[in-house]
Amino acid sequence: MGPFPVVSLMVGSVVMSMAPDDNFLIAGSNATGTNGTEILIDTDARDAQRVLIASTLTFLVGILQVVFGVLQIGFIVRYLADPLVGGFTTAAAFQVLVSQLKIVLNVSTKNYNGVLSIIYTLIETFENIGSTNIADLIAGLLTIFVCMVVKEINDRFKHKIPIPIPIEVIVTIVATGISYAADLEKKYNAGIVKSIPRGFLPPEAPDVSMFSQMIAASFSIAIVAYAIAVSVGKVYATKYDYAINGNQEFIAFGISNIFSGAFSCFVATTALSRTAVQESTGGKTQVAGIISAGIVLIAIVALGKLLEPLQKSVLAAVVIANLKGMFMQVLDVPRLWRQNKVDAIIWVFTCIASIILGLDLGLLAGLLFGLLTVVLRVQFPSWGGFGNIPGTDIYRKVKDYKNVVEPEGVKILKFSSPIFYANIDGLKSSLKSTVGFDAVRVYNKRLKALRKIQKLIKKGKLKATKNGIISEPGISNEAFETDEEPEDNEDLQVPTKEVEIQVDWNSELPVKVNIPKVPIHSLILDFGAVTFLDIVAVRSIKTIIREFERIDVRVYFASYQDNLISQLERSAFFDDTVRKDMFFLTVHDAVLYIRNQMAYSDNQDPIFEKISLMQESKEPIEFTETVRPADELDVQEEAMRRLAS
Amino acid sequence: MGPFPVVSLMVGSVVMSMAPDDNFLIAGSNATGTNGTEILIDTDARDAQRVLIASTLTFLVGILQVVFGVLQIGFIVRYLADPLVGGFTTAAAFQVLVSQLKIVLNVSTKNYNGVLSIIYTLIETFENIGSTNIADLIAGLLTIFVCMVVKEINDRFKHKIPIPIPIEVIVTIVATGISYAADLEKKYNAGIVKSIPRGFLPPEAPDVSMFSQMIAASFSIAIVAYAIAVSVGKVYATKYDYAINGNQEFIAFGISNIFSGAFSCFVATTALSRTAVQESTGGKTQVAGIISAGIVLIAIVALGKLLEPLQKSVLAAVVIANLKGMFMQVLDVPRLWRQNKVDAIIWVFTCIASIILGLDLGLLAGLLFGLLTVVLRVQFPSWGGFGNIPGTDIYRKVKDYKNVVEPEGVKILKFSSPIFYANIDGLKSSLKSTVGFDAVRVYNKRLKALRKIQKLIKKGKLKATKNGIISEPGISNEAFETDEEPEDNEDLQVPTKEVEIQVDWNSELPVKVNIPKVPIHSLILDFGAVTFLDIVAVRSIKTIIREFERIDVRVYFASYQDNLISQLERSAFFDDTVRKDMFFLTVHDAVLYIRNQMAYSDNQDPIFEKISLMQESKEPIEFTETVRPADELDVQEEAMRRLAS
Repeated sequence: MGPFPVVSLMVGSVVMSMAPDDNFLIAGSNATGTNGTEILIDTDARDAQRVLIASTLTFLVGILQVVFGVLQIGFIVRYLADPLVGGFTTAAAFQVLVSQLKIVLNVSTKNYNGVLSIIYTLIETFENIGSTNIADLIAGLLTIFVCMVVKEINDRFKHKIPIPIPIEVIVTIVATGISYAADLEKKYNAGIVKSIPRGFLPPEAPDVSMFSQMIAASFSIAIVAYAIAVSVGKVYATKYDYAINGNQEFIAFGISNIFSGAFSCFVATTALSRTAVQESTGGKTQVAGIISAGIVLIAIVALGKLLEPLQKSVLAAVVIANLKGMFMQVLDVPRLWRQNKVDAIIWVFTCIASIILGLDLGLLAGLLFGLLTVVLRVQFPSWGGFGNIPGTDIYRKVKDYKNVVEPEGVKILKFSSPIFYANIDGLKSSLKSTVGFDAVRVYNKRLKALRKIQKLIKKGKLKATKNGIISEPGISNEAFETDEEPEDNEDLQVPTKEVEIQVDWNSELPVKVNIPKVPIHSLILDFGAVTFLDIVAVRSIKTIIREFERIDVRVYFASYQDNLISQLERSAFFDDTVRKDMFFLTVHDAVLYIRNQMAYSDNQDPIFEKISLMQESKEPIEFTETVRPADELDVQEEAMRRLAS
Repeated sequence: MGPFPVVSLMVGSVVMSMAPDDNFLIAGSNATGTNGTEILIDTDARDAQRVLIASTLTFLVGILQVVFGVLQIGFIVRYLADPLVGGFTTAAAFQVLVSQLKIVLNVSTKNYNGVLSIIYTLIETFENIGSTNIADLIAGLLTIFVCMVVKEINDRFKHKIPIPIPIEVIVTIVATGISYAADLEKKYNAGIVKSIPRGFLPPEAPDVSMFSQMIAASFSIAIVAYAIAVSVGKVYATKYDYAINGNQEFIAFGISNIFSGAFSCFVATTALSRTAVQESTGGKTQVAGIISAGIVLIAIVALGKLLEPLQKSVLAAVVIANLKGMFMQVLDVPRLWRQNKVDAIIWVFTCIASIILGLDLGLLAGLLFGLLTVVLRVQFPSWGGFGNIPGTDIYRKVKDYKNVVEPEGVKILKFSSPIFYANIDGLKSSLKSTVGFDAVRVYNKRLKALRKIQKLIKKGKLKATKNGIISEPGISNEAFETDEEPEDNEDLQVPTKEVEIQVDWNSELPVKVNIPKVPIHSLILDFGAVTFLDIVAVRSIKTIIREFERIDVRVYFASYQDNLISQLERSAFFDDTVRKDMFFLTVHDAVLYIRNQMAYSDNQDPIFEKISLMQESKEPIEFTETVRPADELDVQEEAMRRLAS
């Protein structure tokens, strides 16, 4: 356990926004003097306040982590996808760069916080670039250059040199020596570290009144700290063959943060390099922890004092030089874009959101965006009409394959996703485009034609026999009633047959109504990828079945998931029209069944019965103009009536 | 077009929160008198301000709607699922009830806004219930009773009476008469309507400075108003067979709201009952609109004055009596729960959120929650080991069916959902539970055993021959090296055979390492419902393949979606180990291939070669202890190194 760069940065941004320098301005040291207009900062009060904020934050993070652990929501880490983490850490690196840049330049800026604060800070840094301290800038640039070169050497020759050159340590020691020897502070007004407090602070209770201000940030920190620790832990767990209990880790980190929050400590997560050292030196028990703690103790008590003449710009430069790896992640984006556009977009979105909104809100925005992409990917699935590969029981997309044959009079639609409220319109439109007509429109047009036929029969211009409708000889031309719709006018000159005409909807009718042709008698929905249906989907599918039944197209379902039938049963899906015998194990089974049915069916059109009935009774028969099936209309109109009443 | 109850309510809540009565307090009318402590409300200023707020809101809603229309985001309406709308409108009804309750009681409360405001209002109403005006209460209760009874009669006998009794109109007229005749205001201090302004207000520019305060609410209102209008429009579009262009509707409503916002008007949506009347009376063109506007004009100019003596509590009671339908929606919840638990939870969540957070934030919360349920349903799919139904090429879940046979040495896992970052852990654990062992653990244990065998060979206690490993006669008992792990101690008394032992991992080994048995040689993943993979999933599946290959289990994929292969190609999935010949059209094809392969394979264990190599070289052979496949470790460690550096 120990500190981690990203977490340190997140804690730092909370501290800086809650206790900026501006809050601790005091008049110049000799306030009575008239030239005492110089404004100083009460660094002691400021630092005390900042430590209090950091330790209070640690305490709150600890509480949240314990709560998360107890509520068993360790699973939340799963939502931190790789592209999201990549974008987030790159944005964090950018935040660090901007915060360190003003230290390298030794330029002071106001403390911004909230949305766009990092951009404002960057702008102000460049506006004040004239006041750059040259000594600090040179020291910083030199440090960056040396660190980068040596790190590159370390990387290139990692197999030839026994241990990497600890360039950060060397640079720090050398720079401290130079600064002390040349007295850079006095001569060039360089910004130096000045004082490093020794020893330990007394325990201090966290300031509960700050909780409300830092709750959002501590939420993000609690998750991020935990996520980093668990992902490192998992690497070693796999290596040494043990299992990690995510919720137990949450509680452990939580308790340790609550405890250390009372001792002016900092949010604990994983100390990656120390873990690696301990593993490679064979440390396995808590004794190794005690020894490394002892070494840190010596450093705190004895060595801190020696670093006081060090320029702050050197420290900032060391940090900047180490950001290279995190910035290099930007190079992943083009590869990601090639491999998976959605993941690349998540990366970019999270990065930009974290820069603009700050790290805490940015992480949340990225997380929500990631979930939204999942919804969208489910919502807009691939779909298409399927056909048979001749001689096999295999069905493939007609568009993608040559030599795929659609069975005569059958359309097969595969809609590759669960069906729920957000994509039910998509299902309907894909259905319409697969079958090539709109079932409701066809029904309405047929109804219109039927009414006209009825009218003609009443006028005696037509009569219906067992063989269909016969127009009376000689007056057939007048028997044609035209549709009012102007677009039908062009059809007027179609030659008319003075022979027996049966009410076959796909042939010509004795009335002029443009009825779209229905070239199919069966529709198969391949439900192979429909893993769930919600209540809206169940209702809509029932409506679809009825709409097609009305125009004499039977609907079948094939290769459904095992749990679908029971789900449909619970949703009151089945009734007299919608029966279980519509469901087939495979598409091929459904096609074979349909072929069989067709061979033995007598193809009697139900409309014929109505028409003969008409003629016998001579009374107008009531056509129920239920444009939508009764129950859906009920539901919808009932809802509307309630809303409006 | 016209007003709609839910939208009116949403506009009302913005108006009340931005211009509460408290903002318009003035001293009593004779402020100079000592008993002038009575505090009055400057109703003229208040009403003017409220009208300005409502019309500004209308203007802003119009702008948003035009923007939505131009950006083509009419699709957003799809996310308003039925259960969400049900919960939301019930919460709206509750809000109306509470706001009208205090008018019926004639009790004054403070104006709350923000989170929980409706609850505070309700509490305060009951705290002040002592100051109830009895005349108003009686009038209100009577109105509610009469309205409810007559509405029930209307509903029961709707087929027998030609038109429903317009009880609201009758009650209003009667109550006005009674109030005027009995002079209820003077005698009982009843709250009456008092003044209804006549005529029209002059045009007034919207107050742009208010925009920032009302942006969230106007966002919700713009969406809700549009959603209602479009869903009503769709009913008629289906009936009269025309199509609605969602984005065009958005722009039309937007422009009309922008225009009317400048004339002190109110957000327009659909006027449901007027639409129904117009349709049933045969109105088809804009002339019908002009006529109905004329009637409204007469009402505004001439009839308003007559209603001034009406008690406000009667109006409030009419509103409450009409809420019955909306509250009855609560009865849907148990049915919804039986049919689909997730949808029931969405209903309840949206309702509670809209009551607690207010209508605008509540709608947003419900919307996000709805999307989250989709993610969760995709994230936790059904999965299971599949087996063959003997004599067919059909595979079904072993758990659900009797007489389903798993092919010898083959496990078949079907994971019924897309695979992405949030459920990749789920895939791994379902895999582990289906095959019955952990591939990484098996590999690590085998590696351990191999090291011990090597040690024994070096000591000369074992030797490897072409036929396997032979322990030297007589010293075989010492040859057994025990595993350090204590749980292995119980295995110590297992009798040892002093015969030739081959390194068959599923039989006993000459070293005491507990290696989990691997009873399979092939694993088939049924990808029938895997409609997409993200980059994390692709990497993890590659890792899974390698982990199984290392322990001599071949992985195959079956019944994949057509677009999967090209997606995997783009993601750099295929290489020397992971080849395209792992993919089969159906599970049965894969099983047949495996059966064929097994019949002709020589079953030579690759570990044997290593051991004979050992003996020949007598040098320790380096075992690469890559616990995870090289590239995943690379990716993960590389990321960690970057973060930590």
